[in-house]
This record gives sequence, C-alpha cells and structure tokens, in this order.
Amino acid sequence: MKAVYPGSFDPITNGHLDIIKRSLKLSGSLTVAVLNNVSKNSLFTADERVEMIKASVADLPNVKVEKFSGLLVDFMKKENADVIIRGFRTVSDYEYELQIAHVNDHLNSDVETIFMVAKNSYSYISSSIVKEIAKFGGQISDFVPKEVERALNKKYK
Amino acid sequence: MKAVYPGSFDPITNGHLDIIKRSLKLSGSLTVAVLNNVSKNSLFTADERVEMIKASVADLPNVKVEKFSGLLVDFMKKENADVIIRGFRTVSDYEYELQIAHVNDHLNSDVETIFMVAKNSYSYISSSIVKEIAKFGGQISDFVPKEVERALNKKYK
Amino acid sequence: MKAVYPGSFDPITNGHLDIIKRSLKLSGSLTVAVLNNVSKNSLFTADERVEMIKASVADLPNVKVEKFSGLLVDFMKKENADVIIRGFRTVSDYEYELQIAHVNDHLNSDVETIFMVAKNSYSYISSSIVKEIAKFGGQISDFVPKEVERALNKKYK
Amino acid sequence: MKAVYPGSFDPITNGHLDIIKRSLKLSGSLTVAVLNNVSKNSLFTADERVEMIKASVADLPNVKVEKFSGLLVDFMKKENADVIIRGFRTVSDYEYELQIAHVNDHLNSDVETIFMVAKNSYSYISSSIVKEIAKFGGQISDFVPKEVERALNKKYK
Amino acid sequence: MKAVYPGSFDPITNGHLDIIKRSLKLSGSLTVAVLNNVSKNSLFTADERVEMIKASVADLPNVKVEKFSGLLVDFMKKENADVIIRGFRTVSDYEYELQIAHVNDHLNSDVETIFMVAKNSYSYISSSIVKEIAKFGGQISDFVPKEVERALNKKYK
Amino acid sequence: MKAVYPGSFDPITNGHLDIIKRSLKLSGSLTVAVLNNVSKNSLFTADERVEMIKASVADLPNVKVEKFSGLLVDFMKKENADVIIRGFRTVSDYEYELQIAHVNDHLNSDVETIFMVAKNSYSYISSSIVKEIAKFGGQISDFVPKEVERALNKKYK
Repeated sequence: MKAVYPGSFDPITNGHLDIIKRSLKLSGSLTVAVLNNVSKNSLFTADERVEMIKASVADLPNVKVEKFSGLLVDFMKKENADVIIRGFRTVSDYEYELQIAHVNDHLNSDVETIFMVAKNSYSYISSSIVKEIAKFGGQISDFVPKEVERALNKKYK
Repeated sequence: MKAVYPGSFDPITNGHLDIIKRSLKLSGSLTVAVLNNVSKNSLFTADERVEMIKASVADLPNVKVEKFSGLLVDFMKKENADVIIRGFRTVSDYEYELQIAHVNDHLNSDVETIFMVAKNSYSYISSSIVKEIAKFGGQISDFVPKEVERALNKKYK
Repeated sequence: MKAVYPGSFDPITNGHLDIIKRSLKLSGSLTVAVLNNVSKNSLFTADERVEMIKASVADLPNVKVEKFSGLLVDFMKKENADVIIRGFRTVSDYEYELQIAHVNDHLNSDVETIFMVAKNSYSYISSSIVKEIAKFGGQISDFVPKEVERALNKKYK
Repeated sequence: MKAVYPGSFDPITNGHLDIIKRSLKLSGSLTVAVLNNVSKNSLFTADERVEMIKASVADLPNVKVEKFSGLLVDFMKKENADVIIRGFRTVSDYEYELQIAHVNDHLNSDVETIFMVAKNSYSYISSSIVKEIAKFGGQISDFVPKEVERALNKKYK
Repeated sequence: MKAVYPGSFDPITNGHLDIIKRSLKLSGSLTVAVLNNVSKNSLFTADERVEMIKASVADLPNVKVEKFSGLLVDFMKKENADVIIRGFRTVSDYEYELQIAHVNDHLNSDVETIFMVAKNSYSYISSSIVKEIAKFGGQISDFVPKEVERALNKKYK
Repeated sequence: MKAVYPGSFDPITNGHLDIIKRSLKLSGSLTVAVLNNVSKNSLFTADERVEMIKASVADLPNVKVEKFSGLLVDFMKKENADVIIRGFRTVSDYEYELQIAHVNDHLNSDVETIFMVAKNSYSYISSSIVKEIAKFGGQISDFVPKEVERALNKKYK
C-alpha cells in the first residue's frame, strides 16, 4: 500500500496533521500532494504551502511532500501509488468527496480512496476559517502548526 | 495493518462484497466480524449469516469470518487488529458512522476507522431493501451473492 | 401517463392532499395506493385509511383509491400505470426515496418515479406528528381533512 | 424569559449537562422537563431519570426538574414558561427539531424555541450510545455524570 | 402537460440526457431551456450550448432547445408551459432546488415543478467535474455525448 | 442577556425581520450588526444596508443597528454583549453555522450562540434569491420590507 494525501493545504491545519499521523499508522509512509491549481485563488503559493507542510511534518518519519497539477489519477500513476487518503468533516464535504471518489474509481479502478476522520476537536477547523480569524488578528495557535501561525501573521500584518 | 470489517450482514449483499474486495487490496487479509446482537431482530441467525458470508468469499484469499458480541473495541483487541473498515452510502449513515468512529477512537485510540465507498452501482442496495424485495417475490439476483438469493427465497417461500 | 401515488397514509394529511391535487394537474387522473403492510403497526386499518382518503378526495375528479400489498412495481403492472408520484419534505426522506426510486427503476425501467413538493406551509406536517398531537388533545384542524380530524379524535378519546 | 429544556434524558449525559449550564447563562433559571412517554421504551423510569438529573445539577442554582406527559405546549402554559431550549448534534436531529419547532409555533406562537450547541467534545455522545457502551462493560465516565455511571453499571451488572 | 427542462448545460452531460429521455416518457414533448446568464462565467456561450444539446438530442422526437434569460416563470408563460422538470443528485442540490421550487410556486402557482432522478450510473457526473477532467486530458467519453467530448477537447487543446 | 444579531443583510428580508422580532421577545433589546466585509461583493454598501434595516425596524423598540468589520467576538466584547443570535434555514446553513459557533466558543467561551428558526413561510427566502428575482423584474413584495423593495427596484431599474 502506497498512500497519497492530496489537497490544497492553503495552509495546512492541525486537522490535516492529525490525518497525516493517522495515515502513517496504516501505510508506514505517505506522500502529501499539494494541488498547484492556477485557476483557484490561494493565499500561499504552492511552494510556500509545501514548505509549511515540510516544517510541520519534520518529526514524522517517511512523509514526502510534493506539488502536483493536473489529474490526481495521473499523479498516482507517476508516484506508483494505489491509495488516496481523504479526511472529511461536514455532510457537504462528504457528498463532494464521494463524487470525486467515484470519478477516480472510474478513471482508474486500481486506485482506492479511503476516508479518515480527524479527531473531533479539529472537526470545526478548516483552512478558510483559520485564514478568516488570522486576517482580523484572532488567536489561531490551537488550530495550526507553529510555522503556519508565523506565516499567517506575517501575511496579514 | 490488521483489518476488521464489522456489521450485521443480515444478509450480506453485493455492496458488502465489493467493500471486502476493496479492503483486501489494502491489507492483504481481513476479518469479517458478524455482530451477534441478541436485542436486535435479525432475519438470519448469526451462524446462518456467517455461513452465507463464508460461501460468498470462498474464492477470496485470506478472509476470515467470525461472530462477535459486545463492544467492537474489545473484539479488535482480542483479534489483535488495528483497523476498522466501514462502508457507507447515505448522509444518515455517514453521521452515525462518524459518531461511532469518534466513540471508538475515545475508547481505544490505537484503533483507526477507515471508510470506503462501494461501487456506485451498489449504492442503493441495503440488506433491508433486499429483504423487502425478496419477501414479495421480487428479483434480487443482481443485489446479492447466489447463496444469499437461495437462502432468502427459501426463508420467504 | 397513468399515475399512482403510493403511501401508508396513516392517516392522510393536508400535505398528502396537496400532492394529490398537484398530481392531477399533470396526469388528469390518479390512483392513490394505500400500502397494506401487515408487519408495520398502523393506527388505522387499511380499509379505514382508504375510507378517509375517499372522503377527503370526494370533490376531486378522477381519483381512485386502492389498497395494495406486495411490491409497488407489481401493483403498477396490475394497474397498467407508468408513473409513481412521491412527495417529500426532509433530507432523510430524500435519501430513502432516491434509494427506492433506483430499486424500482432496476426492477422495472418502464416505470418512472417523479417527486413533487407540497406547499411550504405543509412541509412540517407528517402523519406521525399529527397522531402525536391528536393523542394529547392538541388542535389538528389545520393539518388534516375534516374526516381525519373526526376519526383521530374518536380513536384517542 | 422563563425557559424549559425538555427531553427524554434516558439517561442524562454530559452533553445535556453542558446545554443546561449554557441555558442558565441566558435565563438565570431553568426547568428540565423529563418526558414521561408510556409508549416509548425507556431504560430508566421517569422518576429514576428525574432523580439522576437532580443529582447531576445539585450544584447549579435555579434548576428545577419535573416530569411531564402530553403536549409540550401544554406543559409550557402550566409552567408559565415562554422559551423551549433544545440542543442538537446531527443533521437528522436538526430536521426533526425544526419540524417540532414549527409545530409548536403553530400550536402556540407565544412560545419560542431556541437551539444551542453542546461543546464539540460532547457532540458524538448520545443517551443511546452511552447505554450501548455501558451494556457491554465499556468505560463511560467521560460521557455521563457520576450518578449516571453508577446507575448504568448497576442496571447492566 | 407542456414541460420545460431548464439549466445551464455548460455543457450537457449524459446525466442531463437521461433526464431528457425520462421526461419525454411523461410528456411526449419537451423544451430544453438554456439559461443565458451574463453574470455567471460559462465555458461555452449560450449558442454553443444550444448547438451541443441539439446535436445530442437529434434522434429524439419532439425536443425543442431554446435560450432564455430572466425569470424562469416568465419563460414558462411565454412558452405556454406548465411543468418545470429538474433532476437532482446531491443533498445540497436538493435543498437549493426546493427553495427555487417554492419561489416559483409563489410567483406563479399554475406552474408545477417535478423532480426526476437520473440513472444511478450518472449520479456522480456534473458539468463542472467533466470540465475539470477534460481540462487535464482525462477520458470523458463515458460522461458526455460525442459532440460535447469533441467540443471540450477542442476548447482545452 | 445582551444580544447581537450579525449578518450581511444584503439586503434584509422578511425572514431576517421575523428573527429580529423573535429575538426581542427573549432579550428585550437587540443590536443588529451589519458585516462590512470589503472582500465580499455586496449589492448595497454597508451604510445602505444599515439604513434599510433602520427603516424596517423603525416601529420596533430597542433595536440598534451597527456596522462592524473584523471578528465577531471582538465586536461582542466592544458591545459588552454575550449572546449571538443566528437564524437558519437549510442543512448547509446549519453545518456552517455550527462550525462558526464552535470557533466563536473557542475564541471566547463567555459568549453563547443561540439559533432561532424563522416562520416557515419565510424559509425559502434568502437575500440572494430576492436579488435574483428583483433583477429580472419579478414581484418581491411578499419577501422584503417596503423600503427594501423600493431600493431593489431602483438598483435594478
């Protein structure tokens, strides 16, 4: 089992980090794949997002962080990976995730998607809510890794 | 990774079977754990359900089928297993499953729950719908394994 | 187009009546099919339910009321009907209804299911809530036809 | 504002207790109304449930605990209360709660229903899940007040 | 019964086509109404979308394809039509669709909205997902009519 | 209890107005807080929105209308208020609202969020739907206060 955890991670939160740790228990190693989507407005560049994740997972063994663009199934093939890891929180997430899982299964049925649930205390955190709070000087240290807190505060100063 | 797929399986459907096959891709081996819940009315006895699953997975390598009662986390410990596999279909499923996953994480945080999605063509099949159709002589051969079809037709004859 | 509106109607509410009227605009005639399900506890017998519906639709042209048991697709065939009408209110309804529609489509793809939405002012009324209110002497005249009000008050007196 | 927090409380959980404390911030005093519903199977009698709540709120000022049966709007009138407090967790809860709130508004528009959200760490606890865990000897001390833990362990011993 | 199937159709998918075929069983004829919404970014112009639909329904009898802008109820009046056909897939769709159906019922209660469900195998396809896949050179031939596949490949070449 | 009802109110609808009236029953006084969010496109300026609300609540005692930007919890502190009032309609609303309530509880646990439900007849109205209808000359007098109707008609003339 070679697992990939794809996402925008704009920026990575403690919820994402929890999913990464849980995934490692399953697969021993993991590639975090940062979507470099030119058409979507992101606060941080793909490179900045990669750097923040790298800093956040520095003490975790066997985590690789990579940028990708294009179709996830193509990235999976390139990486020779067979399992997509997704976390979710809300019902709306859930429906969208199911749609994508079915599409990916159709495009390449050798790849499996598995869903994991972040610790309940992270269930109301999302990258956008964290950005919203940081933007107005709110306290975000419980929601994101140290590096991300620093980067957000710098961005919004 | 030692995985357990728990459920009532009253009876097993092609949707369950699809989840079993997908799980095997991840973990190489799997224990299907049949809940022997005395307080819930089941159509088939736990032993009958175990037998039907055994017949349905006969050609799959490394699948063990067991009865259990009591708490799933206790069964996991007894089996020395660390991953619970759950499939889901509807939003209502999803909320209940999340609740249970959080409770199990609280009771034993060494055990992870992962969710998989059955092929889309099985998404509207459930054990109860299959029983309802069989009861009135409807055609169920697309929904369940051969053994289950036979057993249901016998039950409702 | 020959339409059937199936349900338990235990008892019929103003919400059901609104769906009946809307259906008539589409199809000119309609069969209300009362499910005679022995295994489900109903307050009124199937015959009582049929009588209450008949009284409630007395001034509507071309509405037939019938009991049925067994599979809906078999009843449709017997009636030579090709359209199933369903109303819904909540998200939970919706998911269940979709499942059933897919199953019926699988069992007989000549039959179509269409969904209609009752007037918003009826969206929080259901047969069970009406029974609950009537049981404790609450006012139900805005929720059900006159005949049903009388029958409920008699039942719970 | 005179507030009532109605429910089955079979038994009271820490999630319920959190809602009680939050309500007190709003209204200064509160009546917890224990539904004595003969037709629903409860594990504890209404009197046992009242006693457990009383023990759990002993250190909270101005909380009254009462049994009631019949319609909630009638109980509200008897108590001269004007605000119904409800907590919720899941989407399914939410839809049912909205229905009931609309019905109660229809029956007596002088009474308002307000909804509060329990602390996130209690969001996956429900009376039924707690009973399920206790039944099989699982650890429930994080989910319920001491008195309830004792009562459940005694019941299932 | 004169039916209209409104939408953006940017572009038409096999899911839409399935709804068109199902609608024809009900009403014998159908107008597909392509929303020409200047404020919404569409990939294809309204005229391109109309052309693609025309090509896709060429072998279906009695299907008219028209552009419209403004309120749907006004278009319905102009067309002398009385039934709006909508398909849906997800819970989020469902809630939005219900809102719109209630609004349209308020604006003109002579017009009925009916909902149909596309074949299950199309339930995870949407215009946006198809565009996303096509954009990165993924295989879309199972999701859209031939004409649309060609047009998308040309657009994204 | 000092209550704040925050929102975009772009523009205020009869649904919002219903929540304001219900809130007054609870708290005697209320501050309507108009979010002045520069990054979100609004049809009306914050000042225009404040003016329309003021005109709409002119006959209600003890309602203050204010603009705010930044974090709601900071505004609450500035106003010395302890209760946030939110109305909701759909399941998607509900999930988002819960997330925000949890975040606000985390940022300042002295502040409580309570949810109220608008009269059912307003449940399908939202600011965006009203704008959509007004834009194309549809009738909106049942959905918004007189002042808003005038302002919308002027805007879109």
